[in-house]
Amino acid sequence: MSKDKKAIEALEDLGKDLVKTVLSNKPPVLNVPIRALSNTMYNAKSQTLELGDKVSERNFFNVAHSKKFLQTLEVAAVSKDLLNEGKHASLRDVFYMIKRTIPNTKTNVVDDQPESDDAIEDLEVLSGYSREQLNINANKMGSVAGHVVIEDKGDEIDWSKLGSGGWSIPSNVEEIKFKKVKAKYVIYMEKAAVWERLHEDKFWDKQNCIIMSSQGQTTRGIRRLLQRLSQEFDLPIYILADADPWGYYIYSVLKYGSINLAHMSGSMTLNTAKFLGITVDDIEKYGLKKHLITFKDVDLKRLEQLQNYEWFKSNKEWQRQFKMMKALKAKAEIQALSSRGLSFITDKYLPEKIRNKDWIE
Amino acid sequence: MSKDKKAIEALEDLGKDLVKTVLSNKPPVLNVPIRALSNTMYNAKSQTLELGDKVSERNFFNVAHSKKFLQTLEVAAVSKDLLNEGKHASLRDVFYMIKRTIPNTKTNVVDDQPESDDAIEDLEVLSGYSREQLNINANKMGSVAGHVVIEDKGDEIDWSKLGSGGWSIPSNVEEIKFKKVKAKYVIYMEKAAVWERLHEDKFWDKQNCIIMSSQGQTTRGIRRLLQRLSQEFDLPIYILADADPWGYYIYSVLKYGSINLAHMSGSMTLNTAKFLGITVDDIEKYGLKKHLITFKDVDLKRLEQLQNYEWFKSNKEWQRQFKMMKALKAKAEIQALSSRGLSFITDKYLPEKIRNKDWIE
Repeated sequence: MSKDKKAIEALEDLGKDLVKTVLSNKPPVLNVPIRALSNTMYNAKSQTLELGDKVSERNFFNVAHSKKFLQTLEVAAVSKDLLNEGKHASLRDVFYMIKRTIPNTKTNVVDDQPESDDAIEDLEVLSGYSREQLNINANKMGSVAGHVVIEDKGDEIDWSKLGSGGWSIPSNVEEIKFKKVKAKYVIYMEKAAVWERLHEDKFWDKQNCIIMSSQGQTTRGIRRLLQRLSQEFDLPIYILADADPWGYYIYSVLKYGSINLAHMSGSMTLNTAKFLGITVDDIEKYGLKKHLITFKDVDLKRLEQLQNYEWFKSNKEWQRQFKMMKALKAKAEIQALSSRGLSFITDKYLPEKIRNKDWIE
Repeated sequence: MSKDKKAIEALEDLGKDLVKTVLSNKPPVLNVPIRALSNTMYNAKSQTLELGDKVSERNFFNVAHSKKFLQTLEVAAVSKDLLNEGKHASLRDVFYMIKRTIPNTKTNVVDDQPESDDAIEDLEVLSGYSREQLNINANKMGSVAGHVVIEDKGDEIDWSKLGSGGWSIPSNVEEIKFKKVKAKYVIYMEKAAVWERLHEDKFWDKQNCIIMSSQGQTTRGIRRLLQRLSQEFDLPIYILADADPWGYYIYSVLKYGSINLAHMSGSMTLNTAKFLGITVDDIEKYGLKKHLITFKDVDLKRLEQLQNYEWFKSNKEWQRQFKMMKALKAKAEIQALSSRGLSFITDKYLPEKIRNKDWIE
């Protein structure tokens, strides 16, 4: 059975259960696991953030619940149609698709997108399928290059033959088939400009790896693509980000998951992720001290939050980094390496770091 | 002579002129056209924002000028090296590459990136070459699909065979060679999610066009790519953006140029651009009235600024749109069209608009 068919079945089962309840004269109820910090816990064994077992009952006959109940069923209906038609919609599309006034009332099914987004997350937990698997897409962002051939929508795409641009990563990578993967590891970087540097220097070709970047946020499409490469081809994922609390948090989310996606941790986290740099040690080691950027209050505050995250608390190496950064009261950017020469990152920094296994886990 | 060689020559001429001045015992001076609103004017004939002829003299022996003088020469030297090596650097890279302390002083060549960015823009005016032509890149963003084959860095890339992702647009498109362009027009949209909708529906294949998008800002790479397609293949460019002052400003910048890039207007503006939608008329015509988003103060203020831009002032149709939007006190998003059905935009809205030439110029 295809993935889509399984997802459709899961949605139908949800509906059938409700019909059964109604026919037996019981009030229809959805039991939705609570998605909040209070019900999120760090599983030290699997190294992921996970949902606890607190459940919130959504009873159709309870006036306080009925709207949310309806919203969840509306997005389930939209998702089922999408799967049947083989189409994908964005979160914003879904909002507009279910936004209408309930006949004979002045009440809208949804007024703002957070309501439909919320209902979609509920549906993820209820059905056990991610919104991408339910054909609902997040934002599209990012580029990739390497000795990889994939098949997607009937096209065969060679990531090593796409000029200076690379392949544009779609928001949904569930249906991509990998035909050839010739790489020892993947480097993911937060900055497109750094990606362009490595790409121009043909780093992926020289070092036999895959280079991937976004611009700003790490989209779910990128996370899933990294995860698929890690799981299906056993590739280590190296994260390259600024030496600051925000860069370190990019690693944290990729590796351990995030609070609002704890229910998806299984398909979203990357236990093989290693933080390659910029570490605080690198600042000294690679002569970046002249290029420090002094902390603002907000940086310090964010750093202290990181220090106290459960998954970092027991990690001696990370605590050491945090402590050094706190003493330094400053941060440094990846691109500060350009002060050592434009291709210093390609010719020296990255090969040396990887050869010496000089990363943090 | 290759483009690069010409740019190198322009930089060398700049240096030689200075040397000549020095050797004749005169103070070295750079005459930099002023890049500010006060020296920006709208050329109604060419329909572009252009720099006026006010020039600011930068005299090396004037203490107030000497640092800026030095910065300009530093970025010129970096650019010359980049061109000679055939490498490209980002704005941030260039900042770090020239950031150092002047020997025997406590003065840095640059302290913050706006200083080097400024020097690069000065160099653009002085040399007559855009920073992309000087091998200095802006941010990378956006995707493209269509019946187009290009050659880039020795790779032949078919924009119609890149699966769900499309080709990732590089920050610099100067060196791309077009081998085959089979399209009647280009649609550029601000939202990646809308691009994914059109792409999944194979809009570019059905309608014989090129679809291009960014996510958020329109990068210079995208602007140049649109301009090259327009100039070299005489393709009209249709802009698809939200019905709000920000969406309309995306069109304004693409078509007429922007104040801070007035010196580059020749290589950046798109006189063939037409605003396809969402127009205020579309809101009524395509049943989007239920999906209006009420104006905030900031929207109204921005709208009033647009109304008063010189290039819009004499444009009756745009003034009509602004007036209607002001009366409506509300905006509407492209994705509101999804309320009419997910593929309404592909099957009805866009084909109808284009067939009826229902756009604003």
